[in-house]
Order: sequence, then C-alpha cells, then structure tokens
Amino acid sequence: MVNVGIIGATGYVGIEIVRLLQKHPGIKITSIVSQNFVGQKVSDIYPTLRNVFDMKCDALDIEAISKKADIFVTALPHGVSKEVIPKLINLGKRVVDHSGDFRYKNVDVYEKWYGIKHEMPELLEKSVYGLPELYRDKIKDAMIVGNPGCYPTCSIMGLAPLLKNKLIETKNIIIDATSGVTGAGRSTDLAYQFCECTENYKAYKVSTHRHTSEIEQELSFLANEEMLISFTPHLAPMKRGMLCTSYANLKNETSSSELIKLYREFYKDEYFVRVLDEGKLPETKYTVGSNFIDISLVVDKRLNRVVVLSCLDNLGKGASSQAVQDLNIMCGYAETTGLESPGLYL
Amino acid sequence: MVNVGIIGATGYVGIEIVRLLQKHPGIKITSIVSQNFVGQKVSDIYPTLRNVFDMKCDALDIEAISKKADIFVTALPHGVSKEVIPKLINLGKRVVDHSGDFRYKNVDVYEKWYGIKHEMPELLEKSVYGLPELYRDKIKDAMIVGNPGCYPTCSIMGLAPLLKNKLIETKNIIIDATSGVTGAGRSTDLAYQFCECTENYKAYKVSTHRHTSEIEQELSFLANEEMLISFTPHLAPMKRGMLCTSYANLKNETSSSELIKLYREFYKDEYFVRVLDEGKLPETKYTVGSNFIDISLVVDKRLNRVVVLSCLDNLGKGASSQAVQDLNIMCGYAETTGLESPGLYL
Amino acid sequence: MVNVGIIGATGYVGIEIVRLLQKHPGIKITSIVSQNFVGQKVSDIYPTLRNVFDMKCDALDIEAISKKADIFVTALPHGVSKEVIPKLINLGKRVVDHSGDFRYKNVDVYEKWYGIKHEMPELLEKSVYGLPELYRDKIKDAMIVGNPGCYPTCSIMGLAPLLKNKLIETKNIIIDATSGVTGAGRSTDLAYQFCECTENYKAYKVSTHRHTSEIEQELSFLANEEMLISFTPHLAPMKRGMLCTSYANLKNETSSSELIKLYREFYKDEYFVRVLDEGKLPETKYTVGSNFIDISLVVDKRLNRVVVLSCLDNLGKGASSQAVQDLNIMCGYAETTGLESPGLYL
Amino acid sequence: MVNVGIIGATGYVGIEIVRLLQKHPGIKITSIVSQNFVGQKVSDIYPTLRNVFDMKCDALDIEAISKKADIFVTALPHGVSKEVIPKLINLGKRVVDHSGDFRYKNVDVYEKWYGIKHEMPELLEKSVYGLPELYRDKIKDAMIVGNPGCYPTCSIMGLAPLLKNKLIETKNIIIDATSGVTGAGRSTDLAYQFCECTENYKAYKVSTHRHTSEIEQELSFLANEEMLISFTPHLAPMKRGMLCTSYANLKNETSSSELIKLYREFYKDEYFVRVLDEGKLPETKYTVGSNFIDISLVVDKRLNRVVVLSCLDNLGKGASSQAVQDLNIMCGYAETTGLESPGLYL
Repeated sequence: MVNVGIIGATGYVGIEIVRLLQKHPGIKITSIVSQNFVGQKVSDIYPTLRNVFDMKCDALDIEAISKKADIFVTALPHGVSKEVIPKLINLGKRVVDHSGDFRYKNVDVYEKWYGIKHEMPELLEKSVYGLPELYRDKIKDAMIVGNPGCYPTCSIMGLAPLLKNKLIETKNIIIDATSGVTGAGRSTDLAYQFCECTENYKAYKVSTHRHTSEIEQELSFLANEEMLISFTPHLAPMKRGMLCTSYANLKNETSSSELIKLYREFYKDEYFVRVLDEGKLPETKYTVGSNFIDISLVVDKRLNRVVVLSCLDNLGKGASSQAVQDLNIMCGYAETTGLESPGLYL
Repeated sequence: MVNVGIIGATGYVGIEIVRLLQKHPGIKITSIVSQNFVGQKVSDIYPTLRNVFDMKCDALDIEAISKKADIFVTALPHGVSKEVIPKLINLGKRVVDHSGDFRYKNVDVYEKWYGIKHEMPELLEKSVYGLPELYRDKIKDAMIVGNPGCYPTCSIMGLAPLLKNKLIETKNIIIDATSGVTGAGRSTDLAYQFCECTENYKAYKVSTHRHTSEIEQELSFLANEEMLISFTPHLAPMKRGMLCTSYANLKNETSSSELIKLYREFYKDEYFVRVLDEGKLPETKYTVGSNFIDISLVVDKRLNRVVVLSCLDNLGKGASSQAVQDLNIMCGYAETTGLESPGLYL
Repeated sequence: MVNVGIIGATGYVGIEIVRLLQKHPGIKITSIVSQNFVGQKVSDIYPTLRNVFDMKCDALDIEAISKKADIFVTALPHGVSKEVIPKLINLGKRVVDHSGDFRYKNVDVYEKWYGIKHEMPELLEKSVYGLPELYRDKIKDAMIVGNPGCYPTCSIMGLAPLLKNKLIETKNIIIDATSGVTGAGRSTDLAYQFCECTENYKAYKVSTHRHTSEIEQELSFLANEEMLISFTPHLAPMKRGMLCTSYANLKNETSSSELIKLYREFYKDEYFVRVLDEGKLPETKYTVGSNFIDISLVVDKRLNRVVVLSCLDNLGKGASSQAVQDLNIMCGYAETTGLESPGLYL
Repeated sequence: MVNVGIIGATGYVGIEIVRLLQKHPGIKITSIVSQNFVGQKVSDIYPTLRNVFDMKCDALDIEAISKKADIFVTALPHGVSKEVIPKLINLGKRVVDHSGDFRYKNVDVYEKWYGIKHEMPELLEKSVYGLPELYRDKIKDAMIVGNPGCYPTCSIMGLAPLLKNKLIETKNIIIDATSGVTGAGRSTDLAYQFCECTENYKAYKVSTHRHTSEIEQELSFLANEEMLISFTPHLAPMKRGMLCTSYANLKNETSSSELIKLYREFYKDEYFVRVLDEGKLPETKYTVGSNFIDISLVVDKRLNRVVVLSCLDNLGKGASSQAVQDLNIMCGYAETTGLESPGLYL
C-alpha cells in the first residue's frame, strides 16, 4: 500500500483524483490539502462523498503533510507550486503535478507562452512528461511527473501514429478542439456562470492558448523536426468531455482502413486507447467518467487529407484518471488498477 | 458466483444494471437479451462499454437463455412480461422485475390505476416489494422481486419514519416530485427530444400518475391505515436525478433536530440512506451515479408542518442499483457489493 | 414619448428591460445606469445589442440622471435603493422598483422576513404593489410601483380566482415552485456556476424564503383573512422559466371544467393570462421570452383537492416585462405595447 | 400587404418563420400548411403562440392554398418539394424554398452529393441563391429563392471578403463548424433524444456533409476558380447557434486589424453583419433569436494563417430569419422589416 497526499484536493481535478483513489486497492489517501477548507470534511464540500470518504482537509504545512505520504499529487493554483514542490522533492517525495511547470523541455518556450519566469528550472531534469503511452518507461522512476494538459493529451495521441510513421506533412496541421466547462476548474468567473455558459458555444484564446506550445513540443519530438500548428480551443455547454478534430495533409495516397490498421498496431498494447472501426465516430459521452481515449479517422480522398477525431474526458484521461494511471506506473501496479470502470453513458 | 441474465438490457435501466454487474465480484452476467439488437454487441449500442464488456445480445428465447442463468432481471416493455416471467418461474428461475406487475398486494388497485387486467395474479403471492430497507427479510428468499418505482422509493423512504412513528396526520399529505428525463426510458417520443426538453420544466400526469397508488399502498402499510395522497410528478431538463418534496401536518409540536434524530435511529443500519445534518439540503447531483438516498427535513413551526426532502438517482436507487441491492440480498452477499462507488459530483 | 431611465441596467432584470424598451414605440430610454460599467457601451457587456442599442452607461449621479428622464426603473442591489429612491421621489420622478422595499403594506412583516430595518417607511404610502391584474387602477397614478417578485406573481395569480370566490380552505395551502437560474441574478456565486448547476435540481430556503411573506400578504387580501402558507422554491437547470404547483382543499365538490370556466371569467379582460383548456398543462417554455402567464388546474376528486399549475418567465411576467406592463399603465399606453412578441418555443 | 403561405409550417424552420411573420407589418400569413396537423391550430402545437396566432393548418392542396397567397415559403421533407413547387410556379406564385434543390448551379454536383436525381432541373434557371449579401439584386425579382443552408451561410460570409480580395490561398482551407440541435429539425430520431444529446459533443458526416458542395460552389464563385475545402460539422448540446472556425493560409503578411478594416469595408452596407473589434470573439448566444451574423478574425503571424470565426443562429440567419430577409427583398421592403429584434442574451 502506497500512501498518497493530494494537494489542492477540492478543485475539480483534485476531487476527481480523490474519487478514484479512495477505492484504489494499492493506494491509500493519507492527506488531502485544501487551503480554503482546512479542517472541513471533504464530504461537506462534495457531498457525493458523504459516508464514503469523510477525511478532513489539512493545511498546506509541507513538513506536517510530508510525514504522511510518499507521493504527492499537486493540483495547485499557479504561483503556489514553486513554494511547495521543491520542498517536497528535497524531502524525498515524488510528485505528480498538474501545472504547466514540468511539461516542458525548453524553459524558453514555457516562459514565452506562460509570460512568466520559470521558478524551478533545475527541477526539469528530474521531471517526465506524464503521457504513459509515450513515456511509460521514464514515468516509472521519475521524481516529478508533469501530467499533460487535456488538449495536448487528446491531440498528441490522435496524431502520434501519423507523425511517428511520417505519413503526413508537418505543415498545415490544424487542431480544432472543444472542451466541457470543467476544463476551467472550479472557477467563480462570470464567464462560467450557468446562465452565461448554457446554450452557448464559443472559441477562446484563438492561436494563443498555452497548450499550443505543449502540443508543438510533443509533435516535434514525434516527427523529429520542429513543428508549428494551428490550435483553436472552444467551449461547449457541458460539464465534461473533449473532442479534437485534427486535419493533416497526407504525403501519399492511402485509405481510412489502412490508417486504422496502422493506429491499431501503434496502440496495440494500450488498454485505454480505443481505435474505432471504420465509419464509427467518437462522441464525448462514450468516454466521460473513464480513462479511455477514443480515436477514429477519415481520409478525404478528394483532398488527400486525413481528419482525426480523438475524444476523451477532460477530467479523466485529460487530467485526473491519467494522474492515477501515472501513479500506477510509479508504484509498479497494473496501469488499469482503480480505473476499470467504464464511463456512464447517461 | 451467481449467473444472472438481463432481459431488456439495452434500455436505460437495463444498461445501467449491465454497467454495475459487469464488475460485480459475485455475479456474472451470462446473458443479455435485447429484441432490437439480437446478435449485436452491447458495446456497439452503448460504446462506453467498448473493450470493457462486449457481450452480444441474445434473442428472447426463454428456453435457451434459461439454461444460462439462475436469476433474471427483467426490464421489459409492458405486455411482454406476461409472456416471459411465468415461464422463468416455472423453470425455477428467480426474477427481479421492473414493471408495476409485482409491486401490488391488491390486484384491483393495479387494474384500476394501470387500466388493464393483471395477467399473472397467481404470481403475486410469490412476489415481494423490493425495497430492501423495508422488506429485506422477504427479499432474501423471494422468487419474484418487484423492484419499486423511482418515485415510490424516493417518497416512501422520505415519509416512512414519520408514519411508522405516527407523528403526522395521514390526511393532507402532498408529495411534489421532480425527475430527470431518463425516467421516461430510451424513448423516441417527440416530448423527450432534446430541443423540446432542454430549458423546460413541466408537471405531467397531475393526480393521475400510476406511482400514486404504489406510494399509497406502502404508506398505508406503514401507517396501518388506508391513506390517500396528492402526488405530482414534474420533469426537469437533466438526465438523472429525483427529488421529492413532501409535506405533512405534524400531530404534535416538534423540531427539525428531534425529527432528524428519529430518522437517524430509524435508518441507523442502512448504508444507503444518508440523513443530512440540520440545515443541509439534498441536491440531486449528490446522489447521481450511486445507490444513495439523501434525506433532510425542515419543521415549519409557524404551520406545525414538516417538509421532507428526499433525493436519489432515478436510475440508481430508483431503479438499477436498487436491483443490484436486491440481487445482493437474494444471493446472500453484503448489500453494498458492487455498489461502493459514490456518484460523480461532476 | 416618455423618457425613462434604468438604474441597474446591466443585471439580468435590467438588461431585459433594456431589450424590451429599446424598441418601445412610446418610451425612450434616455439613461442607463450601471455602477460597474460607467462609460462603457451596454452592447459591449451584452453583445446581442451591438448595433441595435449602444448607449453608454451613466454613473449613479442622481442629479445628473434625473434631468434625463421622467420615470426611473430601479433594479438595484439591496442597500443602494435607500440612497436613490427618496431622492428621485423628491425630484418628482416616478419609480418602478424591483426590490422588496415597496411591496409590503406592513413594515413589520418586511422587517421580520428581510431581517433588516425598512429605511423608507414613509414612502410606502406612495407605493403600489405592481401586479396589474389586481392593482391596475392604483398603478396608473402611483409615484412608486413595487414590482412583485417572480414567485409571488406566479402563485398569487394562480390562486386568486379561488380565494376571491372563497372556494378553497385557507389552511393547508401548499405552493411548491421551481425557477430557472436567472432568478439568482447575474451572480458569480459558486452555487450558480455552470458545472455546479447543470444536471442538478434542488430545493432551497425551505419554509424561509422571503417571498413567502409577500405571497401571504396578497393571498390574505384576496381571502380577506390572515393566511399562512407553505412555500418551497426549487432551482432547475435552465435559464428562464417558473412553474408553481399549488395545492388547496376545496370547500365543496366541483370539477376541473367548472373551475376553468371560473378562471376564464375572472381573467376575461387580461391579455397576458392564458387559462388552458381542460387536460392541457403549462410548460415553462411556452412562456419564456413573453409576458404571458399560463394557468391550468386539475381537481383531484378522490381528495376534493385542486392542483393549480401556473407558469411564467421569471424574467418576463415575473420581473422585466411586468415592469414594462406597469410602465405602460403609468404612461397611459395600451398594456400590450412593446410586449406583443410571443416567446421563443426553441 | 403581401399574402404569404408557409408550407411545412410546423417544423422548426417553419414555426420560426411563423413567429417572425405574424407581426410583420407588410406581410400577412394567409395559409399555413402542415400535413401532420391539418385542421389543428398551430398554437396547440406550439403553445407559445396561444392567443397570439391561432391559425389552423391547411392540408397540402395546392389549388386551394394557391388562391390564398402570392408567395410561398416551403420547408418540406425531401421528396415532397417536387410535387409542390413546380405547380406553384406554374400558377405564377413565387417561392422561398429551404431544401437543397434550388441552391445549385450545376445539377451534377447536386446529384452527386445528394445521391439522387434532381427532379426539377428546368426550374434552376428561375432560381437564385438566397444569400442577400451576395445576391440581393437577383433575389429581388426571382421566382424561386433557394434559401442557403445554415453552414454555408455562416462559412461563406466568413470567407467572402478574403476570397473576393484574393488574400488567401485557395488550397488548405479548413472549415470546422458546430451547430445546435435544432439543425436536425423536429426529429424523433434516437440520436436527438435529450438523454442522448445533452452533455455530449460529436462530429458527424466528416468530409461527407452535403453542405460541403454548397460551400464549395459559392467560394469558387467568389475566388473565380474551382475550390475544394475540408468541412467538418459538429453537434453541441444546445438548441440554437452555429459557429464556423475557418482556417486559411494568407498569401501575404498582414494583420488582424488590417483585415478587420477590409471586412468592415466589404460589409459596410450590411445591417445584419457585425464585424467585431480586434480582440473580441463571437459567441453563439450573441446572435440567437436574431438575424445577425457576427464575424471576427485572428491572424496567426507565426503561421501566416488567418482564423475566421463566424457565428449566427442556425434557425435565424441560417434559415428562418434569412427567409424573411429574402421575402423583404422580394416584396421591396426594407430588409430589416420585422427583423429588428436583437437576440435574447438569456
């Protein structure tokens, strides 16, 4: 049994990790930290957990909580991480972090897109990009896992087989993506108010979203060349769910069925990747509540272009359940441990 | 390991039972029957289940399926039950049924409210009303369990402690209830179309809903006198969730805190009943995806009236997970087996 | 042409009044006041109005704005009214107010339910309860119109014909009501965040909502006796819409059709009241975007009880369009002026 | 006053035209035809219209209805048009049609994408593509106006200024679009059931949607060269609203502000086109209920690519209110007649 602490447990990502880990057979939650709710039961804040998991929230006292756990999951507001993570590492703790801080290999890219100085550059060499399907081996022993963003997870996994196999041009790649509202976190901003959000659809941060640089880093590694892409995120009136519709020009003529075969080969050992049959398309509801990512693709022969549809739960494979998958790898458990539940269709 | 067959597996109640049982440690789904999808994988119809549970749908051939399982769950359209259930019983199979057919003690009441003749009155004596908190002992050995309706489960459990303790007048009881749209099943009726339902709230079957009679039967048993009630169901634009707001005149002066204490005593051994602290109110999202029923109450001292709020997932404790709870009792398992998951808050 | 100023124009009630009045043939909006957006175009805050109505927001400088208009509509946060309204009245301006301040005849009732001292009791004698169907004649010349709350408008109009005709007992009246989320105003409270609200239904302020006292005042006037009622508000996941389901014991035997006839007689000159045919039930979407209130009723002969369903748009007849109806009366216009549009079904 | 008949009045497009025309100062609805509801009041089918517009539905008897009106709006299921429209034209009636039948210049393209034979090719020369901003002069005297599809209206208007001014490459144009559910019409298909649609987002008809060919036709006319594009429609869980996110490679370096200036010049006489200020992005809710199309654009200097966001109400400018705009032109009225209302923000 591995003891895990969750810092930032009462945000949407944090509470979903609590939900998943509270019944995990190999992991025990031994501390949950929430600065806003110190001393309160998490089940008073999220009453779904009443009688199921009633742990009280600890204060963010690193020394105190570090004694309670071996691995910490951090889901912190920006600016707090730098006070917390170096201390945990110094104390020999391992960390799965949810900020952008440990996702980049190049500090300059981070600093340009985030518009701030990186406060812990020396920790980058101890950190691994937490996408199990690409970096499983490194995650195993990593001190710090930078859990990928939701858009990057969804789009990178959608394009990886094509880039790795050099089947598409690296120019003219467009990623058009849509997320549910939980992607914004437990925010009280007016923009996320029910009456402002419901029955509404919009694009935001067009060509300027930070995840663009994260996607470009990983696609460049896959293609083994520097790549730039267009990325447009949108917001749909639903809680969870993410769909990336990605467009790329094919180098050679091919067919949907050939590419599907290739994808299935590429992901043949990946339980959480479901490559759909030709003619089937993913829908966000098929993945919501699970750690699955569903992928399908359509070759448009008129244009010799491929359209890839990749779909996941932004709070699942896009954040919290991927963190659990990372924890499983770090602890040496089967990756599916505690993640067996399919989503709720309804 | 008990083998269970699910007849009507591709409706909303059926598929939720599939979802719950596919990971049940003591129950094995050995047959799923769906007349519309014979030979198709259930995971093609509900793609959340892809790679998780890909069983193919059997035809409704009683002889064939009866060999596969010991207990059958039936969630059938009206009129089909009478062709199916007597045969299963004759073959020595036990049944958990989701129609109104096995919920009544008095055939006349059934026939009056359902407007049809009861086709299997002789089976009523083998049947038990499947509300575990009231009939656990009888469910244990029952051949037929008539799983209660969602509104009855929610309102009966909200009022049971008051009636059993004779604290309220039996006249002037009002039950005002709201359900999510899954309550209508997987229907293609225009009224349940997205554009007709969303952003809309309405009452329906005012004073004429069949569940009225089911509620009256059980409240009468609890009060040990014939009772009539007002019951008004409403439809809210959400998938799951049910709230009953029940009003009753108190016989004597009392307080919210005294009644809460009484409720907690009444339900002290019931894992799935959560009586909330004074001042807290239930919300449907606290129960969605789980088998919990949350109950709170407010005494209005000005009027010497109590308002009881009871809340559950109409597909959970109101149908499918209650069926699993019944199955657990019938099989001698702990009642919480396979039902440990709290709901998804998000 | 009457010049009207709207103070608090960028809240949900305010902006809906702007939307209605900007095309009103007899009323000209000459000032809109919003303390948060001084100097900004209202169409930058509510971009539906771009190129349609681009007026800039004035500061709350009573002297300055009082020169611009003859009548002011106030939709202010509590506590600001007392700084504003007496000054406007002193300057000879007429006011349609949206707070609770001018809805009560008895200051004690107000102070008890609102838990604060009434700051302008001397203005109460200049004020009229702005429900046109009951107080049309007084509204005509009133200096101050206290526009009723949404729940009171909906429930009072639903019960008025019964009480006025002494057909129901004044005890055991239950009003169970549901509102859309705009009822909470343009709030950034966590409780009204999209992910918290959507797919959720709940009761709130059970037996303690301030509107209880407003409803009781008016029902008592109609019945000509002191009345107490049970009132429970609920929140449904939709923007607009309100349904009140009211229960009352009938004094004598009667039928739905007889009572419908009586309602139609009672409201025979009221354009905005639609009494539905027997067997038809109202739905919130039938009224959303309009000034209509739809009413139907069902007599439950088993219990000799009547269930009244009354339905309106909480931002329409429950607030903003009722304010326009009041303005029309105050200005001597036909009541339907500017209010001819039916709702959007979709 | 021009007399207009609406054939297919009880579908979502039809009823929205009824809503708009029933208060139109220059147009009188003299017949509404609905084969499913002959003899019934339209206000019984869409109760928003009760007491506002209670006309009864006529049967589809061309001879009878042709006597009632001068212009007919047709919103018919496929296959019925060919029985109706030629007869109306023969009788000298003008038609605004909502099918794909009169949108194409090249019958072959229609037959290829629709997979059927065009039944009225001889009528194509009498028909005009009903996009007022591009074909106003021809619409004026047209016998048949083929009202454009929603996706074409939204995307063509978004790209027209760029193509007309030859600022973008005609290869590598991607149009990624999202629609609300009313786009599917008043369907009872399971896919549009509330519980299937809500909280879900998906792509559909990837690379095969018929509107692709309609968009290509008009973009080709604008560019004066044959063009092929990628078009992917998506479905979001909301009733109304459409957003097209279009990507194109710029021929030369430019900036967002320069292009916005160009768009404003291009659309300078168009009341219903709102080109947003730099940095502002459209949201579907800003247009819902109105005839506006909102357009903004972002130049991504890293990629020398422009992203155009165009947004409208699929039932508004994408269908019904555009039909009214066409009718206004055909009748010689100001184009804004009856279309002055801004949308409902809430």
